[in-house]
Amino acid sequence: MNKPIGQTRWAIAEGYIPSWGNGPEPQFTSHETACMLNTSDQDAHVEITIYFSDKEPVGPYRVTVPPRRTLHLRFNDLTDPEPIPRDTDYGSVFESDVPIVVQHTRLDSRQSENALLSTIAYGSND
Amino acid sequence: MNKPIGQTRWAIAEGYIPSWGNGPEPQFTSHETACMLNTSDQDAHVEITIYFSDKEPVGPYRVTVPPRRTLHLRFNDLTDPEPIPRDTDYGSVFESDVPIVVQHTRLDSRQSENALLSTIAYGSND
Amino acid sequence: MNKPIGQTRWAIAEGYIPSWGNGPEPQFTSHETACMLNTSDQDAHVEITIYFSDKEPVGPYRVTVPPRRTLHLRFNDLTDPEPIPRDTDYGSVFESDVPIVVQHTRLDSRQSENALLSTIAYGSND
Amino acid sequence: MNKPIGQTRWAIAEGYIPSWGNGPEPQFTSHETACMLNTSDQDAHVEITIYFSDKEPVGPYRVTVPPRRTLHLRFNDLTDPEPIPRDTDYGSVFESDVPIVVQHTRLDSRQSENALLSTIAYGSND
Repeated sequence: MNKPIGQTRWAIAEGYIPSWGNGPEPQFTSHETACMLNTSDQDAHVEITIYFSDKEPVGPYRVTVPPRRTLHLRFNDLTDPEPIPRDTDYGSVFESDVPIVVQHTRLDSRQSENALLSTIAYGSND
Repeated sequence: MNKPIGQTRWAIAEGYIPSWGNGPEPQFTSHETACMLNTSDQDAHVEITIYFSDKEPVGPYRVTVPPRRTLHLRFNDLTDPEPIPRDTDYGSVFESDVPIVVQHTRLDSRQSENALLSTIAYGSND
Repeated sequence: MNKPIGQTRWAIAEGYIPSWGNGPEPQFTSHETACMLNTSDQDAHVEITIYFSDKEPVGPYRVTVPPRRTLHLRFNDLTDPEPIPRDTDYGSVFESDVPIVVQHTRLDSRQSENALLSTIAYGSND
Repeated sequence: MNKPIGQTRWAIAEGYIPSWGNGPEPQFTSHETACMLNTSDQDAHVEITIYFSDKEPVGPYRVTVPPRRTLHLRFNDLTDPEPIPRDTDYGSVFESDVPIVVQHTRLDSRQSENALLSTIAYGSND
């Protein structure tokens, strides 16, 4: 691979982690995932900022995606500086020192059958 | 954050609010949401125009997204200049005075299990 | 609105109309929809070409989206030059004489609860 | 058609093939699909690389999309150089010698009603 694919800044305007779900844990826990793909030959140091509707942003949360690896990060698992509250609207911005690709997925298992959504995030190099 | 992420014009070609649903209100009311993220340090004044298949557009609906905030707007909640009719095809355009990111989500609860869809909107600075 | 939003060529790589479904017709008929939004002040003359996995493309199918209107076109409803076969993989390209925005949605009602998918199409002005 | 639509490199950050499902086979086998559309008049020779969270990438997997054809490739069906493990996070990159359009879809049939997701992949000509 000649050149890493992607961009260095990504935004996901939609975020919401339901507080409950149905089905075997942890696969069917309601969750939001940010899938990050780093095709470069360097670590991608990613800083994530979480935006809310009614208070100042929280972050940065720091994660590292190793070279030539994908990281499927559950927002549910973020704890430092603080966990993301459930049943709360949020948005997120990802800033990486190398180009990455970010995709957003939610599994909603609040009712007996799960529902899925996914979309590419909004990417920019600005 | 050095520079706000996003674009100033966004379009969502798909819109449809089912008139009925199942499950506890208001979480499981069938709804369409436009998630707007404003990472800038200024208010984003957003004007929304709603397009129909068989009559002239309605709007602008005006909303403000405060600095460093996300707003998850339910189309169901828009009332001024007039509510969006149910069971009707529509599309929407968002024009903001500062760059924002817009994502579209629908929860359809007409059947006993809900279904979800989401996509990044189409963004442009033109 | 100063300038119409969108692009003149769009592609949807994914297409598949299930031959059967459950639930009240026509809302719960399994269907694929291309939502087109024309924010300009002119008719958008759109030519749609359907691509298959094992035979030459069919088209153009011709539709007109009036000025300042959205058209939610069900692929199920296309008949001229010929209907789109069910249970068959296809893709589609949209070419318009004015900029439009295209979004793709599927309602799959083959099982007792419907499933939804949606994504912005791939747009280009080339 | 004057010029083929699309780009030559595409990335899908999200990938996960559930190991089990419900419903009639093969339509309701849980699967991930990459839909590729080649509107050009030449073969598109596509090389796919699969990225994991904890080991080096595998590939290239080689597929050819004939001129003016769409190919809906199930990741489940890839076997050479090796099958993609189930219940495992992965990402993918597509490199083609002619412009194509790539869209990602998952049918998840682990519960009694299926769920669908779809998104346009991230495209680039770099």
